[in-house]
Amino acid sequence: MGYIGFLMVSLVGIACSLGHGSHKARFKLENALAFQRSSLHRQNASRNMKLFEGANGEMYFGGGQHLFRLSFQAKPTQSLAMEPVMFCIQEAVSNCGNITVTQPGRDGYPLYVCTAYGDHTSCCFRAANGSSADCRSDFIRGGEPALLTGDALYTTHSGLGYRDGVYRTSKNTPLMPSSQADQRYVKIIERRKEENPLQDKLYAFYTEKSNDQSPDSDLFTPRVSQICKADLGGSKDTLQFQWTSQLSSRLSCGDPSRKLYYTVLLDVAVLPSEDGGDDRVYGLFKNGWEIRAVCVYTMRDISQVFSTSAFSIPTNSLKEQPGQCVQDSRKLSPDLLKYMKNSPEMVDWVRPIGNNNPLLVSHHHYSHIQVDRVGGTQGQEGHNVLLLSMVRGAVHKVLETSSEPFIIAEYHPFKLETHILSMLLHSSEKKLYVSSSDEVVQIDLRNCSVYGNQCADCVLARDPYCGWNSGRKTCAPYSEGTIQDIEDGNVQKCAAESGPDKGAAETVLIPESSRHYLSCPIHTHHATYRWLKDGEERQSLEDQKQEQLVLLIEGMGSADEGGYECEAQERDYQRTVAHYQLRMTSGAMGLKSSPLALALLAFLFSALW
Amino acid sequence: MGYIGFLMVSLVGIACSLGHGSHKARFKLENALAFQRSSLHRQNASRNMKLFEGANGEMYFGGGQHLFRLSFQAKPTQSLAMEPVMFCIQEAVSNCGNITVTQPGRDGYPLYVCTAYGDHTSCCFRAANGSSADCRSDFIRGGEPALLTGDALYTTHSGLGYRDGVYRTSKNTPLMPSSQADQRYVKIIERRKEENPLQDKLYAFYTEKSNDQSPDSDLFTPRVSQICKADLGGSKDTLQFQWTSQLSSRLSCGDPSRKLYYTVLLDVAVLPSEDGGDDRVYGLFKNGWEIRAVCVYTMRDISQVFSTSAFSIPTNSLKEQPGQCVQDSRKLSPDLLKYMKNSPEMVDWVRPIGNNNPLLVSHHHYSHIQVDRVGGTQGQEGHNVLLLSMVRGAVHKVLETSSEPFIIAEYHPFKLETHILSMLLHSSEKKLYVSSSDEVVQIDLRNCSVYGNQCADCVLARDPYCGWNSGRKTCAPYSEGTIQDIEDGNVQKCAAESGPDKGAAETVLIPESSRHYLSCPIHTHHATYRWLKDGEERQSLEDQKQEQLVLLIEGMGSADEGGYECEAQERDYQRTVAHYQLRMTSGAMGLKSSPLALALLAFLFSALW
Repeated sequence: MGYIGFLMVSLVGIACSLGHGSHKARFKLENALAFQRSSLHRQNASRNMKLFEGANGEMYFGGGQHLFRLSFQAKPTQSLAMEPVMFCIQEAVSNCGNITVTQPGRDGYPLYVCTAYGDHTSCCFRAANGSSADCRSDFIRGGEPALLTGDALYTTHSGLGYRDGVYRTSKNTPLMPSSQADQRYVKIIERRKEENPLQDKLYAFYTEKSNDQSPDSDLFTPRVSQICKADLGGSKDTLQFQWTSQLSSRLSCGDPSRKLYYTVLLDVAVLPSEDGGDDRVYGLFKNGWEIRAVCVYTMRDISQVFSTSAFSIPTNSLKEQPGQCVQDSRKLSPDLLKYMKNSPEMVDWVRPIGNNNPLLVSHHHYSHIQVDRVGGTQGQEGHNVLLLSMVRGAVHKVLETSSEPFIIAEYHPFKLETHILSMLLHSSEKKLYVSSSDEVVQIDLRNCSVYGNQCADCVLARDPYCGWNSGRKTCAPYSEGTIQDIEDGNVQKCAAESGPDKGAAETVLIPESSRHYLSCPIHTHHATYRWLKDGEERQSLEDQKQEQLVLLIEGMGSADEGGYECEAQERDYQRTVAHYQLRMTSGAMGLKSSPLALALLAFLFSALW
Repeated sequence: MGYIGFLMVSLVGIACSLGHGSHKARFKLENALAFQRSSLHRQNASRNMKLFEGANGEMYFGGGQHLFRLSFQAKPTQSLAMEPVMFCIQEAVSNCGNITVTQPGRDGYPLYVCTAYGDHTSCCFRAANGSSADCRSDFIRGGEPALLTGDALYTTHSGLGYRDGVYRTSKNTPLMPSSQADQRYVKIIERRKEENPLQDKLYAFYTEKSNDQSPDSDLFTPRVSQICKADLGGSKDTLQFQWTSQLSSRLSCGDPSRKLYYTVLLDVAVLPSEDGGDDRVYGLFKNGWEIRAVCVYTMRDISQVFSTSAFSIPTNSLKEQPGQCVQDSRKLSPDLLKYMKNSPEMVDWVRPIGNNNPLLVSHHHYSHIQVDRVGGTQGQEGHNVLLLSMVRGAVHKVLETSSEPFIIAEYHPFKLETHILSMLLHSSEKKLYVSSSDEVVQIDLRNCSVYGNQCADCVLARDPYCGWNSGRKTCAPYSEGTIQDIEDGNVQKCAAESGPDKGAAETVLIPESSRHYLSCPIHTHHATYRWLKDGEERQSLEDQKQEQLVLLIEGMGSADEGGYECEAQERDYQRTVAHYQLRMTSGAMGLKSSPLALALLAFLFSALW
């Protein structure tokens, strides 16, 4: 292909993928009163506060020096509240610690919390009443993202201070990273092999700052590394107390043919498979120009790269395969340990599913991602929904489709613009929790009535959480028998339902030459709205952020008399949203301030009343 | 600096540089009737038509099979017209050629035109009456961008077909490129050394498709290459009839510290120096994500790189310096000729002025750039104005400043949305010509009255072409004695002028419970507009694309009575744009269609008239 061809393809490609039409939420819920919320006292606000789930499925909000359990208060109404679990009053307690790790606990203790007091860190299992058990304080470094599994706590460290990487705290074999790279960790997960625990592995997702001095190479590289849980570190000579099994690979997200990559990994969400098969990893990335992309990987593809790819450092002289999980890594050959000391990488990159394309590309400054699987019961196929936090405290609910992603809704749960610092999905409840430095807000993902009171409103919404309940005539949480068409949003599915009643036109009398306006409410941002007068278009709105389409009548005249309809068109579905009949009343009404007119008006009024 | 620090810097940097506030034109001229225009018959429209200047300073519009001179018809009014110079009527002439090169001519022939007839190309000097002279047809390859100088025509070839690069057609020594790269040429200019013509050089600006297979490297590279005009090609053994002096260097545009580069060169404009010193080259670039940037280079910096930088291929064994201009390049040593055959590049990149930063970064899809120098007479400093064509047929007039560029105006000269295919500045006339496939429109850059009829309007516009004429009380083309403040737009400069008259409020009588609206015209998109009722803010508009700020009164009540002012605030300057006094008239007026009210109204009317 010639040069010109390349340029045109790139132009068209980007124009389509970032077109504002498709990246605009169909529906906006901006009424903050529609959300449950609970706030901290301003003085306890902290950028370190984050949401997490306890072992009991309850939600917690903690960080800095405080930790709360989220609950619902019965009075005055059922409303979100925070109950203190750990609460530090500066004046009273001299050694208030900083919470560094919060993990789900076990054995009646729903929490596992690490707290740093100066140089010293202590980790305990904790109950909601604050009682603690099984505390330890040996060799605890790093913090979140972390993972508590078995008798080991895995922590990570990003940035200044210690060496960046994955740390393990356990009674017998604490381990630390061997490399000196500049890394920022985003997520750490484990994959178990029930039939062979020796093969249990950890996967850590992070961005690494590149050491490559060549001017063309990217400054950042998104990576995943694999570690054997059975790793016991190296021999006394090489890699003692350091990982001997860690391999890393680059996460590819972008367009390889045009060498356009998203290189900074911002967040990762894991969607478990439904049938115990292949879990999916959703990575939220950005590039240097602040464009965001979501790429989806399967755990099978990730582990495949580590087992089949060649290594960046040749393995010629090695007798063993690097990165294998073995019973006692301390007995590995000196050659292999020396090889592992150089942090080998895989030559192959981990490619996303879907023909290498990002699932979504956007100019919105998304910062966090959560993913839910909706429906898929009774042998039906389910749908994946992405929840993405935006700047200024908004959240996008996005339907994953095989083609263009569909932004179902944009929630504005906060009363004032704010930074969303953490976001957590409670999948069984179908509630999304988002938090700022001092507030937690709950978004009910099954708040379906907001879409409208017609079957078509409900079907056009394409929200997998919702369906039209024919019996109750409401858009309701999806269940067997409700009507929905997630793939196409085709209102033909409503054919058996009664459609909206256009209703009679409201007659409005307007005095001659006076000003008036007609207002048409905007309900969906994927529709085209227009005002028609006696069937002819007067004004249209295609891509606006307003809440209404206003038709202005500068000075009422006989030519302005007639029937006015505001028509909304979305896909194949057209409806009349507002309907007026304007009639002019002649005479003095609505006159402006000419002295003669004023005098005349005064005379008329005095004559009448 | 740690990793987190890096991320924050990058986030803030981009947010600032692409903030919509600063990249929004202050003033929009959308009335197409305000521009002179001339159109082709639809059947003659062609994407190849482009604007160019003849040797006589006149403007021409040609390409495909037609060429016109732009002129002004006296009747009915002074209006833009096209006079055919070369016009091919398919039915009449069997060998209608395609125009491949259009250059200013000389010696009474204002044009030099090359026309291709199948495989055969012929170039002639031409007069506006169509007569031609000094035609030749030997060894003519390539097309625009081209350069006619002395007895040589330099053409370029981009894309499929021939070898990409610079070609020379001249009687004795035609030359062609030696490399096989995939390149797209944007501009070719010459730099003469009056005192030593042997040192006369050409500079060609282009984008090259990278051969680098490494996944991290960019797909495209913007470059400039230098060629000696005295080059006679190599020996019979090496580089015969090919350039022996061509060197190339990368044009750097972007942020080296974050390795974010704009890699596709779209257009180049040259701004001659005022004092015969250092000409400036303005490059319009884009990156793979369609973000545009303008970077500015000096010719001194460009030639410096070619004379001082090391070469990408070591020159160890060479006795001569590669790229030197010599009397007879055919006699260069075989070693040097072999060295030049490998197309050596400079290790150093050409860096833009201004601390490496782009002059401008924008999400607007600019496609062409022209640059003008305005003012600077009588020892005063002049100002540089960039003219940038956008999609949909608009043009931005941008003031170059030492900090943020200031978008003075956005012109919409076409009646319908169109692609601007060519743009040319007539600097002495201060007119900008833009063309689509079938239309040429003239933008008068000194159309100053559009900014308003107050001194403050004129000064806030920061348009170097305009100043406030105190005598005539108009915003007029800049001349000695007119008031302007290009650097700061400070209205204090108008202190001696009479300010705008706020005027008495217009009293409006509005019937009780009827609808009404107040409208405030939006004149500048850099101002904040708000409606105040009795001094308290009711509604504000900060970043909208509308033409007016409408305050809606849903149903007039006594609480709505009072004084309404629409206030515009731009920098330190505040003014009242609209001013109303609303009074409610009680009674039946404006009632909606309740039958009782209608009956009452009918009764009242019948009683009165």
